[in-house]
Amino acid sequence: MGRALLTDLYELRMAASFRRRGMDAPATFSLFVRDLPPERGFLVACGLDRCLEYLEGLAVDDDDLDALTALGLDDLTTAALAGLRFTGDVWAVPEGRVVFANEPLLEVTAPIAEAQLVETYLLNQLTFATSIASKAARARLAARDKALVDFAFRRTHGAEAAMTVARASAIVGFAATSNVEAAHRFGLRATGTMAHSYVEAFDSEQKAFRAFAEDNAANAILLVDTYDTVGGVRNAIAVITQLGLGDSAGIRLDSGDLASLARDARRMLDDAGLTATQIFASGGLDEYAIADLLTAGAPIDAFGVGTRMGVSEDAPSLESVYKLVAYDDRPVMKLSTGKATTPGPKQVFRGPQGDVVALRDESPPVGAEPLLVPVMRGGRKTHFDSLAAAHDRFESDLHHLPEPAKQIRNPSPPPVVTSAAADALTTAVHQQLIGRDHAPEV
Amino acid sequence: MGRALLTDLYELRMAASFRRRGMDAPATFSLFVRDLPPERGFLVACGLDRCLEYLEGLAVDDDDLDALTALGLDDLTTAALAGLRFTGDVWAVPEGRVVFANEPLLEVTAPIAEAQLVETYLLNQLTFATSIASKAARARLAARDKALVDFAFRRTHGAEAAMTVARASAIVGFAATSNVEAAHRFGLRATGTMAHSYVEAFDSEQKAFRAFAEDNAANAILLVDTYDTVGGVRNAIAVITQLGLGDSAGIRLDSGDLASLARDARRMLDDAGLTATQIFASGGLDEYAIADLLTAGAPIDAFGVGTRMGVSEDAPSLESVYKLVAYDDRPVMKLSTGKATTPGPKQVFRGPQGDVVALRDESPPVGAEPLLVPVMRGGRKTHFDSLAAAHDRFESDLHHLPEPAKQIRNPSPPPVVTSAAADALTTAVHQQLIGRDHAPEV
Repeated sequence: MGRALLTDLYELRMAASFRRRGMDAPATFSLFVRDLPPERGFLVACGLDRCLEYLEGLAVDDDDLDALTALGLDDLTTAALAGLRFTGDVWAVPEGRVVFANEPLLEVTAPIAEAQLVETYLLNQLTFATSIASKAARARLAARDKALVDFAFRRTHGAEAAMTVARASAIVGFAATSNVEAAHRFGLRATGTMAHSYVEAFDSEQKAFRAFAEDNAANAILLVDTYDTVGGVRNAIAVITQLGLGDSAGIRLDSGDLASLARDARRMLDDAGLTATQIFASGGLDEYAIADLLTAGAPIDAFGVGTRMGVSEDAPSLESVYKLVAYDDRPVMKLSTGKATTPGPKQVFRGPQGDVVALRDESPPVGAEPLLVPVMRGGRKTHFDSLAAAHDRFESDLHHLPEPAKQIRNPSPPPVVTSAAADALTTAVHQQLIGRDHAPEV
Repeated sequence: MGRALLTDLYELRMAASFRRRGMDAPATFSLFVRDLPPERGFLVACGLDRCLEYLEGLAVDDDDLDALTALGLDDLTTAALAGLRFTGDVWAVPEGRVVFANEPLLEVTAPIAEAQLVETYLLNQLTFATSIASKAARARLAARDKALVDFAFRRTHGAEAAMTVARASAIVGFAATSNVEAAHRFGLRATGTMAHSYVEAFDSEQKAFRAFAEDNAANAILLVDTYDTVGGVRNAIAVITQLGLGDSAGIRLDSGDLASLARDARRMLDDAGLTATQIFASGGLDEYAIADLLTAGAPIDAFGVGTRMGVSEDAPSLESVYKLVAYDDRPVMKLSTGKATTPGPKQVFRGPQGDVVALRDESPPVGAEPLLVPVMRGGRKTHFDSLAAAHDRFESDLHHLPEPAKQIRNPSPPPVVTSAAADALTTAVHQQLIGRDHAPEV
């Protein structure tokens, strides 16, 4: 699809109007999440890679202009959009970093028409990837040292969403994905077991297990709950023993009381000498269920996490915004009820005392590190990253995250303060706007 | 992306195993939603178009085999997958039709390897599109005769999801979308207003309104809540009056007490003689908020509905499944706790007495209409549809839907019964499986 059409119509209308009026001064927009959902103690920045790829490739071409004309835009508007590309600078928090509400994830500085046009896509990509990475990170916390596998593909919001989910969950430490295209595209480990349908296609469960184990001897995970779970475990033990696959095989539980079934299965496997045979659990799992299973001492070695992580079931969106904070060197803000924003380009300094949202050009507090780094200059990417580096950043930030933020139930994020200079600027701009706009200008 | 990789690894492993073993008898899989979320009284079938496109184009080629080898699949497995295409038959409920839990949305009959491989993508597409169409249909019910516009692009789960959302919302009667690419792709009406940033980029709100109205005289919707909503309405009235745009202009409210602000704005507009100037509302709206606003008598002409519809906030996934119901002319089912399925290929008959889930070859009850129709034969599409036809089906089904199913709060779906023949088959297969599998086969 043409990148220039991947936007809301109002972005194009505003961009055209700015260009028709010669308003080409630089504007800075700040993208951040206003409030965390109650079920989140932190967010994990994700989605930057696709944003930079989009910005580099954005160009309004003749096909786009024809499409816009067909949609009813007038000639002056389409003419004003001709040739538009993204030529600006971007600062952003690298993928994998832990962030909180009101901390800019990304700031764009560009001629205002360009900076405006990209709002829709940047919000779309960062909001979704960040919400999934944040949800998946909680599964990672709940699972402790157990392995996690992304099983979400069948229930994500389309196939492209499944790719984002696989990538985001890998960044926060999922060991593998069931998603073949994502594994291929991002260099992830793909894993897969078997479905009930495979068992049902054979005359008996044991024949099905034997066929699957013969054809997949290197990694035969047998699904034992098609008919009766305890009977299924018994059939699996028979096949694993006959084929001598104890070290490479496993069983999967997908329904019922997983804690109790896992204990029964572990005992049966151990009694048969299959102490290395792993127990895999799946079926409606999320961080809450995983935490409960491990607290209950369920002997489960790996968890398949699907739908609830893949759609971020308890918080399927984030309250992300992309706000103009400066135009032509003038800090700006809006005053709408409950939606006022801090003006000016920003930086987030993370230090021993916690995070400070400051103005971009402030000096960092002693011992503090800036979270936003330059990632694009003059429309060209200057930040080259890898999934492994993003994962390392996540692990390091997770290590330093206060315990209350990491709680699965009733988490609470650490306080984030605004710098004195940012507060002073907010007050000054606020006063100026109130003085100006309360009197009608008719 | 290569279609053959758009699946879970276990589908490929099972497909390869079936083919290695010469198990090429036809299998029938049935795709349905097990239970409705509590907030839904009905579903709207959606997503079939993309499924058929995928099935027609599916082919395992050499690049796919190389990718699978790189992911660690052995040579016997990849060799077994070489050349796989979809050659089967598909029956499905056409898009736009109202459906309920346990009614097949789609049934695939094909050699079992092919029918198995397509599970992931079919579930992915139908689950997501159906959940969005169902959510959007509720906004449509709440809005009565007022216009609805899809504003979801910025918060959907990726850009491709935004296209599905725009299309699904159009099928249930949304008047327009903000999504330019979707409007272009599906022939929808694109609309757009202005953002707070546009207002902030000018020295004053009134200058911004005048500039925007001059550049967009045919459809100037002025956003009035950047600084102070009542002052904003006053500035909008001044500009609309000066430029003589009363019939083509409007104002948009995006924050605060929308009912009260809409009443104030309507009175101010009417007092200024701008009785044709429309009031547009947006900002966190969904069917609940729209119903409350209209019940409160808010004089709002059109609603922009974004995030909550675009992610189906209160039910971001559906409990969809794709179950083997027959293999090699033998009806099959699984017995897992709480997850037993009715065996055999099916049909849904809709008549004056409600819906009956029956076996495919049963005669329809008197006056009843079958919901599933043949849509693909031998791997080729036989069903050619249009968005307008899907919309007509939705309107017709909505008209016949009982009131309790249409309630915004605490809806309840009508009862769906299973035919006597289907029940008898379930009992027979169940007995046979219990007799067979309870005794271990070691």
